[in-house]
Amino acid sequence: MKIILGSASPRRRELLAQIGLEFEVLVSNVEEQVTSTVPYEVVEELSVQKAEGVLELLQKQETLLVIGADTIVACDGQILGKPKDAEDAKAMLRKLQGRAHEVYTGVTVLYVEKSSVEIPGDKSILGEDGTLKVQRHTFHEATKVVFCPMSEEEISAYVATSDPLDKAGAYGIQGLCARYIQGIEGDYNNVVGLPVGRLYQEIKHWLE
Amino acid sequence: MKIILGSASPRRRELLAQIGLEFEVLVSNVEEQVTSTVPYEVVEELSVQKAEGVLELLQKQETLLVIGADTIVACDGQILGKPKDAEDAKAMLRKLQGRAHEVYTGVTVLYVEKSSVEIPGDKSILGEDGTLKVQRHTFHEATKVVFCPMSEEEISAYVATSDPLDKAGAYGIQGLCARYIQGIEGDYNNVVGLPVGRLYQEIKHWLE
Repeated sequence: MKIILGSASPRRRELLAQIGLEFEVLVSNVEEQVTSTVPYEVVEELSVQKAEGVLELLQKQETLLVIGADTIVACDGQILGKPKDAEDAKAMLRKLQGRAHEVYTGVTVLYVEKSSVEIPGDKSILGEDGTLKVQRHTFHEATKVVFCPMSEEEISAYVATSDPLDKAGAYGIQGLCARYIQGIEGDYNNVVGLPVGRLYQEIKHWLE
Repeated sequence: MKIILGSASPRRRELLAQIGLEFEVLVSNVEEQVTSTVPYEVVEELSVQKAEGVLELLQKQETLLVIGADTIVACDGQILGKPKDAEDAKAMLRKLQGRAHEVYTGVTVLYVEKSSVEIPGDKSILGEDGTLKVQRHTFHEATKVVFCPMSEEEISAYVATSDPLDKAGAYGIQGLCARYIQGIEGDYNNVVGLPVGRLYQEIKHWLE
């Protein structure tokens, strides 16, 4: 089964490789459109858009899985995406330090089925009604993360490493910031960017 | 501050490097002696022995920290160490699958202080009473881990990778086995083998 990961994140790539799957990476440039402000709905919506954006890039379909994912941090109902700059990163870390917050990753899996019907002169594989035969499955995982207290000096020093700048909520749990993580409740890899335990359980019937 | 990690585990080495500490590795060959059957007492005892074993190897002391650690898995009050062989690994995984268990890591930090007193002809640095000035700090972290159900085929396939054979409880949460991890409560790195969040918070007053 061919698997396509619709994400440019090197962390998601590492996680999918970690659980022993072979896959290709193909990233769409869809414009992200969010209609909700509820964290789990936001990440589910964005994961759908990322996965379906990849589908449009595929010229010749075979039976395959496309995986799209999006991760955000939520604290007191406020959604924290990637920081705009170092000052924004510091403001996020000041908010997160010494307390709990939630990390949400939405995942969409598209199972694109090979049809027996081929249109002459067009190698796209389409269903009998001329459309792709696609099953869509979307879910999310939420993980609670508890930060140790951080001093202003610790926040500044961490932001100066530039590790926070490309990450939702301005931290990477899998990097230096592990110094300041007291504990979590839920899936650790969900915080890194892809809940590979849940994902594997959800797709394994297609892999067999 | 010189830091010495008294562990041969490549995973502990990676974790300590991840939080940005520079250190050397020095492993003692002390015979491990356990007097308790209570999981947290077992790992604390073994961490003390590992750290103090390293101390004996040091010829010329300067001010330094020695870190010893030991990790075990406990399920229904039964302690699971490293499996003896593939069959033992399978038996452990059959026990762990589809439910929760606990992982305990005990950590001992020895702060070996440079004394102003030097014995002529002996470059060892000793306290005024002729003994090393050592502060010992021991603690443990416990993390709950929940496994997804695993079939006999999944257990056999995982053991065949040989990943479980050198690990307490016959699994490595940071490897392929992430497929089967539903979630945790506590510190993820504690399950990998060293609770670097807690450790950093406990030693940072010595690092400044």
